Amino acid sequence: MGELTIALDAMGCDQGVAATVDGAAEASLTEGAPRIVLVGDARAIGDRLARVAHEPSKLTIHHASQVVTMEDSPRRAFASKPDASILVAAKLVRSGAADALVSAGNTGAVTMACAACFERLPGVRRCALGAVYPTERRRGEKDDPFSLILDAGLTLDAGADDLVAFAVMGSAYSTRISRTDRPRVALLSNGTEAHKGPPAIVEAHARLRQRTDLEFIGNIEGLDIPRGTADVVVTSGFVGNIVLKMLEGVSDTVRRLARYAIDKKLRYRAGVALLAPAVRALRQATDWEQYGGVPILGFDHLCIKAHGRSSPRAIRNAIKVATKATRTGLVEGIATAMGAEAARSEPTS
Amino acid sequence: MGELTIALDAMGCDQGVAATVDGAAEASLTEGAPRIVLVGDARAIGDRLARVAHEPSKLTIHHASQVVTMEDSPRRAFASKPDASILVAAKLVRSGAADALVSAGNTGAVTMACAACFERLPGVRRCALGAVYPTERRRGEKDDPFSLILDAGLTLDAGADDLVAFAVMGSAYSTRISRTDRPRVALLSNGTEAHKGPPAIVEAHARLRQRTDLEFIGNIEGLDIPRGTADVVVTSGFVGNIVLKMLEGVSDTVRRLARYAIDKKLRYRAGVALLAPAVRALRQATDWEQYGGVPILGFDHLCIKAHGRSSPRAIRNAIKVATKATRTGLVEGIATAMGAEAARSEPTS
Repeated sequence: MGELTIALDAMGCDQGVAATVDGAAEASLTEGAPRIVLVGDARAIGDRLARVAHEPSKLTIHHASQVVTMEDSPRRAFASKPDASILVAAKLVRSGAADALVSAGNTGAVTMACAACFERLPGVRRCALGAVYPTERRRGEKDDPFSLILDAGLTLDAGADDLVAFAVMGSAYSTRISRTDRPRVALLSNGTEAHKGPPAIVEAHARLRQRTDLEFIGNIEGLDIPRGTADVVVTSGFVGNIVLKMLEGVSDTVRRLARYAIDKKLRYRAGVALLAPAVRALRQATDWEQYGGVPILGFDHLCIKAHGRSSPRAIRNAIKVATKATRTGLVEGIATAMGAEAARSEPTS
Repeated sequence: MGELTIALDAMGCDQGVAATVDGAAEASLTEGAPRIVLVGDARAIGDRLARVAHEPSKLTIHHASQVVTMEDSPRRAFASKPDASILVAAKLVRSGAADALVSAGNTGAVTMACAACFERLPGVRRCALGAVYPTERRRGEKDDPFSLILDAGLTLDAGADDLVAFAVMGSAYSTRISRTDRPRVALLSNGTEAHKGPPAIVEAHARLRQRTDLEFIGNIEGLDIPRGTADVVVTSGFVGNIVLKMLEGVSDTVRRLARYAIDKKLRYRAGVALLAPAVRALRQATDWEQYGGVPILGFDHLCIKAHGRSSPRAIRNAIKVATKATRTGLVEGIATAMGAEAARSEPTS
C-alpha cells in the first residue's frame, strides 16, 4: 500500500469538521506526516480545508453522507446509517486503503465500528481501551510523565485471561509510544501481596509472574496510581472507569478543598492568587483527555480514539500517535506476544 | 446494664498503651463520657494512667495478658493467643459487660475478633467496613464535610444482596453520626444510568430504587466522589479499597504535580510559600484516617476501628463515635431496616 495512511473520521468531533480538518491540516505540514484520508461530508470538509494551510499531497477527502451523533444508540446506529463516517473510515482500514483509524466520535460508536469491521487478534477474547494519566514519575527518552491504564471501560468484568491480555497489549503500546524499553506492568489490587484481590486478579498475577517478556512488578494499590509506580496499570473496565473519572476530578477537588481551608484563614488568599498560574498548569496536566488520543487494543487494526471535545492540536497528536504505533508495528507486536501467551497456557474460558 | 460502657482494646495502637490510655483519659473528662474499660496489660495501663489527668469513676482496667501484633496472622492469632486484648475486649461486649468495642489494632485481627465473638444480624450475609473521606459538600447540623464509603475492604466481591445491605447500614450510620436526616445513598458505577455496571450493581440499583426508607439517588461516577454528591457511597470492598487509597494520596500527588508546575516557572515559588499553611490544612482534611474511627457494620454489636497510628485525639474521637452510635440505637436501627429488607425480597443467594 506504499505510504502510511491514516483514516480520520472527520465528523466525530463535537465542534463539527473544523477541529478535525484543522488538526489534519496541521499534521500534513509536519515532518514525516502520513497520508490522511478525511472521511465525511465532502463539501463541509473541502470548504474548511480551503481556509487553512495544509500540504495537499498528504490529504484526500473520502465522502460519507451520514454521521453518528451522541444522540444515536451505538448499537442501532449502523443499521440506520450504513454510510456513517466512522463506519466508512473503519472499512477503509479493513480494506487496506488505510493503516489505522482515528476518530473523536462517541466511544460506543467507535468501538462498535471497530467490532463490526475488524477482527480480534488470536488469543484476545475482549478488547481494551487504554487511557493515559499524569504521574509524578517521568519515564522514557522524552521524560514522559504519563502512565497507561487499561481497560478504561470496554470490558467491565475482566477475567484472568483478559487481564493477562491487557498486560501484554499495554506493554506493547507503552514500549512504542513512551519509548520505554521495558515498561513496568502492574495489576491494580487491594494489596501488594500475590494473594490479594478477587480470584481473577490472583490468577492473572500468577500467570504474569511467569512471563519473561514483560516487566511485571506485581500488584499495586490505589496510592501507587498518582505516584506512577507502574508504567502500565492493568484492571477491569469497571474499576478503570471509576479510577480515571476520579483522577479527572482531582484538580477540581483540590481547588475546592483549598477554598475551604482559605475561607477559614483569609490571609492565605494572597498566596492563592500568586499560585493561580501553577494551579492552571496543574489542571492542564491532570486533564488527561487532551493528550491526543487513547488506543483501542486487541483488534487486528489500530484505532486511536480522540476526545469528543478535541482541539486541532489533540487531533494532530492523535494522528501522530496512530502513525508512530503503526510505523513501529504495534499490532504485529501484540499478535506475536499473544501467540506466545496462547502457546504458554490453555485458555481457561 | 446501667451506664453505657465502651470496651477499649488498649494494646492495638502502634505506639503501645500511651495513645490509647491518654485518649481514654481525655474522653473520661468530657461531658457525657461513657464508662471505658481499658483491656490489656494491667500494669502498663495502670502505669500510664497514673501519669495523666482522668476521671477515675469512668475508667476501669481489665487485664489481658496477650497482644495480637501486626506480625501475627489474624487467622491463626486467636488459637495461639486466647488471652489477646482484642479478643478479651470483644468478649466483654458479647457478654453485655460493655456496649461497643473500640480498637486501633490491625484490621484483620479486629475483624476476626468480631466474627469470632459477635453474630451477624439477620439478613446480613457479609459485613462492611465503613470509611469517611472529605468532600466539597457540607452536610448535617454540624456542617460535616465527610462522606461515608462502604465497603472499604472486608467484602471484596460484593453481590447485589451485599450492596443493598451496605446501603441500609451506611444510611443508618450516617443518619446517626452526621445527623443527616435522610442521607443521600448512591451506588458507585461507570455511569449514572440504571443499566450501567456489572450485574450485581444493576440488580442492587433496581432493588434500592424500590425502597422508600432510603434516599437512594442512583448511580454516581468517580468524579462524584470528591464532589460529595452522595453522603453514603456503596461499592464492593475491592473498589472501595482502591478508591480510598487513591484519595489518601490525593494531597501528596497534588503537591508533587504542583512542584512540577513550579519547577517550570520559578516565580510561583513565592505563592507556594504563602500557601503552605493552606496546603497543610488540605493535607489534614484528606488524611481521612485521623478522623476518629470507622465502623464495622453488620454484626449484632458495634465495633469502631481506629487507625493503627492513632493519636490520643483519634482514640478519644473513636470513643465518642462509638458512644454516639450506641446511644442512638445504631445496631437496633440496622436490624429493623434489614428485617424490612428481608420481608421485601427473598434472599437471592
